[in-house]
Amino acid sequence: MRDSVRKICVVITARPSYSRVKSALEAIQEHPELELQLVIAGSALLDRYGNAVDFIEKDGFNIAAKVFMVLEGENPTTMAKTTGIGVMELTNVFYNLEPDAVVTIADRFETIATSIAAAYQNIPLVHIQGGEVTGSIDEKVRHANTKLADIHFVASENARERVLKLGEDPDKVINTGCPSIDLVKTIADEKDLPFNPFIKYGGVGATFEWKEGYIVVMQHPVTTEYKDAKKHILETLYAVKKLNYPAFWFWPNVDAGSDGTSNGIRSFRELENPNNIHFFKNMEPLDFLRLLMNSKALVGNSSAGLRECSFLGTPVVNIGSRQNRRMRGENVIDVVSDRDQIYNSLKQAISGGYFPKSKIYGNGNAGVKIAQILSNIELSFSKTITY
Amino acid sequence: MRDSVRKICVVITARPSYSRVKSALEAIQEHPELELQLVIAGSALLDRYGNAVDFIEKDGFNIAAKVFMVLEGENPTTMAKTTGIGVMELTNVFYNLEPDAVVTIADRFETIATSIAAAYQNIPLVHIQGGEVTGSIDEKVRHANTKLADIHFVASENARERVLKLGEDPDKVINTGCPSIDLVKTIADEKDLPFNPFIKYGGVGATFEWKEGYIVVMQHPVTTEYKDAKKHILETLYAVKKLNYPAFWFWPNVDAGSDGTSNGIRSFRELENPNNIHFFKNMEPLDFLRLLMNSKALVGNSSAGLRECSFLGTPVVNIGSRQNRRMRGENVIDVVSDRDQIYNSLKQAISGGYFPKSKIYGNGNAGVKIAQILSNIELSFSKTITY
Amino acid sequence: MRDSVRKICVVITARPSYSRVKSALEAIQEHPELELQLVIAGSALLDRYGNAVDFIEKDGFNIAAKVFMVLEGENPTTMAKTTGIGVMELTNVFYNLEPDAVVTIADRFETIATSIAAAYQNIPLVHIQGGEVTGSIDEKVRHANTKLADIHFVASENARERVLKLGEDPDKVINTGCPSIDLVKTIADEKDLPFNPFIKYGGVGATFEWKEGYIVVMQHPVTTEYKDAKKHILETLYAVKKLNYPAFWFWPNVDAGSDGTSNGIRSFRELENPNNIHFFKNMEPLDFLRLLMNSKALVGNSSAGLRECSFLGTPVVNIGSRQNRRMRGENVIDVVSDRDQIYNSLKQAISGGYFPKSKIYGNGNAGVKIAQILSNIELSFSKTITY
Amino acid sequence: MRDSVRKICVVITARPSYSRVKSALEAIQEHPELELQLVIAGSALLDRYGNAVDFIEKDGFNIAAKVFMVLEGENPTTMAKTTGIGVMELTNVFYNLEPDAVVTIADRFETIATSIAAAYQNIPLVHIQGGEVTGSIDEKVRHANTKLADIHFVASENARERVLKLGEDPDKVINTGCPSIDLVKTIADEKDLPFNPFIKYGGVGATFEWKEGYIVVMQHPVTTEYKDAKKHILETLYAVKKLNYPAFWFWPNVDAGSDGTSNGIRSFRELENPNNIHFFKNMEPLDFLRLLMNSKALVGNSSAGLRECSFLGTPVVNIGSRQNRRMRGENVIDVVSDRDQIYNSLKQAISGGYFPKSKIYGNGNAGVKIAQILSNIELSFSKTITY
Repeated sequence: MRDSVRKICVVITARPSYSRVKSALEAIQEHPELELQLVIAGSALLDRYGNAVDFIEKDGFNIAAKVFMVLEGENPTTMAKTTGIGVMELTNVFYNLEPDAVVTIADRFETIATSIAAAYQNIPLVHIQGGEVTGSIDEKVRHANTKLADIHFVASENARERVLKLGEDPDKVINTGCPSIDLVKTIADEKDLPFNPFIKYGGVGATFEWKEGYIVVMQHPVTTEYKDAKKHILETLYAVKKLNYPAFWFWPNVDAGSDGTSNGIRSFRELENPNNIHFFKNMEPLDFLRLLMNSKALVGNSSAGLRECSFLGTPVVNIGSRQNRRMRGENVIDVVSDRDQIYNSLKQAISGGYFPKSKIYGNGNAGVKIAQILSNIELSFSKTITY
Repeated sequence: MRDSVRKICVVITARPSYSRVKSALEAIQEHPELELQLVIAGSALLDRYGNAVDFIEKDGFNIAAKVFMVLEGENPTTMAKTTGIGVMELTNVFYNLEPDAVVTIADRFETIATSIAAAYQNIPLVHIQGGEVTGSIDEKVRHANTKLADIHFVASENARERVLKLGEDPDKVINTGCPSIDLVKTIADEKDLPFNPFIKYGGVGATFEWKEGYIVVMQHPVTTEYKDAKKHILETLYAVKKLNYPAFWFWPNVDAGSDGTSNGIRSFRELENPNNIHFFKNMEPLDFLRLLMNSKALVGNSSAGLRECSFLGTPVVNIGSRQNRRMRGENVIDVVSDRDQIYNSLKQAISGGYFPKSKIYGNGNAGVKIAQILSNIELSFSKTITY
Repeated sequence: MRDSVRKICVVITARPSYSRVKSALEAIQEHPELELQLVIAGSALLDRYGNAVDFIEKDGFNIAAKVFMVLEGENPTTMAKTTGIGVMELTNVFYNLEPDAVVTIADRFETIATSIAAAYQNIPLVHIQGGEVTGSIDEKVRHANTKLADIHFVASENARERVLKLGEDPDKVINTGCPSIDLVKTIADEKDLPFNPFIKYGGVGATFEWKEGYIVVMQHPVTTEYKDAKKHILETLYAVKKLNYPAFWFWPNVDAGSDGTSNGIRSFRELENPNNIHFFKNMEPLDFLRLLMNSKALVGNSSAGLRECSFLGTPVVNIGSRQNRRMRGENVIDVVSDRDQIYNSLKQAISGGYFPKSKIYGNGNAGVKIAQILSNIELSFSKTITY
Repeated sequence: MRDSVRKICVVITARPSYSRVKSALEAIQEHPELELQLVIAGSALLDRYGNAVDFIEKDGFNIAAKVFMVLEGENPTTMAKTTGIGVMELTNVFYNLEPDAVVTIADRFETIATSIAAAYQNIPLVHIQGGEVTGSIDEKVRHANTKLADIHFVASENARERVLKLGEDPDKVINTGCPSIDLVKTIADEKDLPFNPFIKYGGVGATFEWKEGYIVVMQHPVTTEYKDAKKHILETLYAVKKLNYPAFWFWPNVDAGSDGTSNGIRSFRELENPNNIHFFKNMEPLDFLRLLMNSKALVGNSSAGLRECSFLGTPVVNIGSRQNRRMRGENVIDVVSDRDQIYNSLKQAISGGYFPKSKIYGNGNAGVKIAQILSNIELSFSKTITY
């Protein structure tokens, strides 16, 4: 019998991380034996990257601390320094909030700052979405997070096996499924898009008739290839223009290479003025899922293509190395960054129709599971490798 | 045929790390296809911790950059912030030095700053002494370093197997033996201690006749138990006082808990004024090995007890959890932090005599091997887990 | 007789600071007894703020160090933290470059980082453009820079008197005139604009016939009133739209409030789609002066209106408190942030014609004077107030 | 009529600053319209420098935030970086505490961090003890603090005139006297030393009979001459040894040069083993004043010699440039750092007896005045120079 609730501090450092764990945040907040301490940091605070903090507050969450930590420059050097600033700042935050456990999410570069600030202060560290495989710096960060963490909530059996192979205690590695699927499940029975994207989200670029069918584009720079960011985005731009099919396009994350990606988009627009592409900075998480569910295909390199779209059955054209070896359903076509390949695969995806729902990333109750386990699992900050 | 030498940047953040890799530094410096960029950081720059930088310069190394990064306070919070400052500063250093590879050593808390600053800037990262097992925060840091690194020079077969299990590419995991054994080998045939410790190193405390036999004490705080640092050191102090046998005692590293350890030593001295203990802040690496080689036993929790002393055959009383599960030879007696156990084991160690030399940590040519491999191994900064 | 040249380290942290001191940089570079160490930092490195570093390199300067230090957020909190990061980073830079003197420029918030990093390391500090008076945080920063500096190059007699009143040694306070006037002088005899702004600088917004007359707009947020940034810019936008006269408009500096200013401009454009305004991010310094020289008026709150335009004789409508009490010629009309006042004053300015050239900010040889004095003035880092 | 109390945030960064403002802290705490937010930072948190935080808590103050910011190294480079870290950390603290005004104290190097963190966030800044004159980096820092501050509580008429000459608004510059005198006043009528220093404060070195007369030594390194710190302290050590009169000696502040000072003391002790000197790390503020009041003389370069001792009438031998031009009473003999001069002046001071109490630094009610004024003065964060 414990005499007090456990304080669970979750650090959100970017827009997509929020939608990924929203259901877990809700379940923690509602659990009588847990108290949520929500920290919003990094690009989730910045207008340029869609100001996720606004959605979060609108969703009714109280924010325990805000941490400005993004150093401008969007190159590998500023990524590294941003992480150093993050360690300093988040250390302060945890020192003052005194959480019983800290949660770090997935594998963005700055998530290791959360891990270090917690682990070095002897606070039990929980890692969500370890054990997956991709390319890029994310691959190093994700597994380093695993080795700094004490408890692991993974999204698939495949991921659980990998975390166990990494030498973690089987009692502390739990396949809860991915909380992002929880969100998908809440809208999976809806019909048609219940809002007009142009009206609700503004944005810039062409306007067009979209009710008969559209695609969604979301392509981020690959940090280990960040000097090619502009080249990569141009291949996709030319392919989508040639397709001449309505397309909703999302701006990239803040990462090394963002400048290249943004420049590519801007100069393409000035030069080619495509009449089938409209650009958004951001969208509320549920609306984004609705947009995916009703689209003919997602193209780019977002992990949403492998994760959320597997449950939705939406066809996906996945470009380049960013999602290398991440587990995928049969809805995914992999291509290299080449305008012809992208164009041809998109043609095929649009005409092929939807795939059956897959549960490889869980069946939609990950958030509740996570909260339940956090309320009664043994919390410790000391471990040794199992072999 | 390469047209230029490879620039290898090695970051030394603490006194013991220097002696551990000195032979590798020499071999890199002498290799015609390598250029050494030596960075001295953290406590290796500080007078309070023995000012390792002075020994390093006296040994003839040029220093490419000095990085002050230790935030005072010696608690988990300042350890974490020191690491954040280290990331910021070392990022600058690598950005300016433009090395072809960066080397990070072992598992002290701040070594992850080197790893992040290199990996995030797409510089191939080499990790020395991965794959070992201990308790404490070191355990998390060491394996996280492994997951951030591209090339691994391990000190034993046992360590190599563990790094492979962690999913690293077998071609990039090489058992070179431990470079610290190289140093041991250079003095292993000497007889008697060639210097008078009191005269050469000053220090404080009792003076005594030592030529007939003495022990060496080196005990660091355990960061995950840092609040017990004072209690732990007092157990050892009482045991060594009771032993009433000449003892040379070394001050601890800068770590969470150093204050507790230092306070324990100081108050014990004022209270008990032991007449068989003399205290040193530091010693040149070779002299320290000579001191160990001629001692009846080493007591405490230094990794030198398991590593260097295995090759020397010196008996070791290893206290507490700090070296848990690190590979050890038959010269090591493990005890918990209890004055009676320590006292009894020391009695036994002193009377039992030396053990045969063991080569579990290598045969003394690790430095040359490391330099040779660095000159021709493929350098890349992108990897994915092997399973 | 000195045996070596003096190393003069100049830190440029923003686009406008570069044009302000360019002639001094050239003179230092060419002086046989001086060596220029040019450090580019802050927003001068950032694409979003016009990437001044590109112009600087194109002008043939070698860059000794680049310092990323801008923390995203553009609010007072990130301004303060940016300054803290700047102190840490610039301290490193000076420690490694070992300059004989460091030059800090004017009064932007981050210039105090240069001052602290130099003064605290006992490096003689030179301040350019002290002794002026304005509103905003600049006012505090400028005079604090004066009190940290050892040598003062001021731009007017008025400024010299003020620095002397602040207790500085008369031998160390020299009225060289403003080096920005040097640049103005080099183009002052040109006729007509020698380039087409639309073609050479791209930009966004309306295109129009400009050869018959245009105005230039440059309005920055006022940091002490940063929450009103959007309101302030909208007043100017409505006034300029109503004027219905060709206008070239420049994006603001990175400062607390930039987001408000940028948002104001963006939403105005979407809503009102003004057909007489074209927007630029940046322009080469000489071209910007040419643009001013040929314009009918400058409107906004840029210090160029008081400084460069006094020598050019261009009419200026100066809005709000940002340039409060800075010395001005008869070419300046001061108004509050009110669309009607701005509109009426602009009407008057356009119809009134040019003013005679004023030399209140110097006669165009400040750069050479600065270099000459730096080569032989006594350099010290210790001073006491004169009263 | 205000509806809520004003939150006054005071930042204490070092042991001596606490005693200097203790009476003001008490008065703020007791004032019904004020709320004290006490921030303890820098060396005031560190065991090595006497752990002022312990005295502060024992005195019954609640601490709103603790800020670790001292970077080890004790040289000009780490002083500068410590200040940068301080800006980052204190910005966070003020952002979270949302004070109505921030108080920065005097002129230690890191006090400018408090000033920047407040001023840049548009928080009204109060400076205590501006307008004085000394040598060293303190001189630059103090006047820079004045130029960043909005309200000035000065300790003498002389100081008030100087702040006015610096261009500050006369309504915002108030001579409250020095709060350190308040503390002196509370013990000024006591007789004899009410405690045995050896028993109450431990310390190291010789023990001796002190009731018949003793001197006090407190000498800090001079940061602009920090390389001479060891030489300077040795002159004083030899003079005091030759005097052969009981002496209580205090360890120096953390500053560039502390290592030199400490080393000087340590090596002198080992070499000369003086039998008339006892060393303390720290003393409770009131006990320190009692010790001064009962001593035959204070020697060194502490500002207490000029300030507190003027009210006490204790003779002072003030060495070197550190207190250059600070206002002093007739109780002070100034000497250069020379053992003969120090010795001779000490002889004279001991035999000369006490001086009459002087009120040049106030009459003992500064704390109450400060609190009263803070409760009703207009708080603003915008100012311009008066000339």
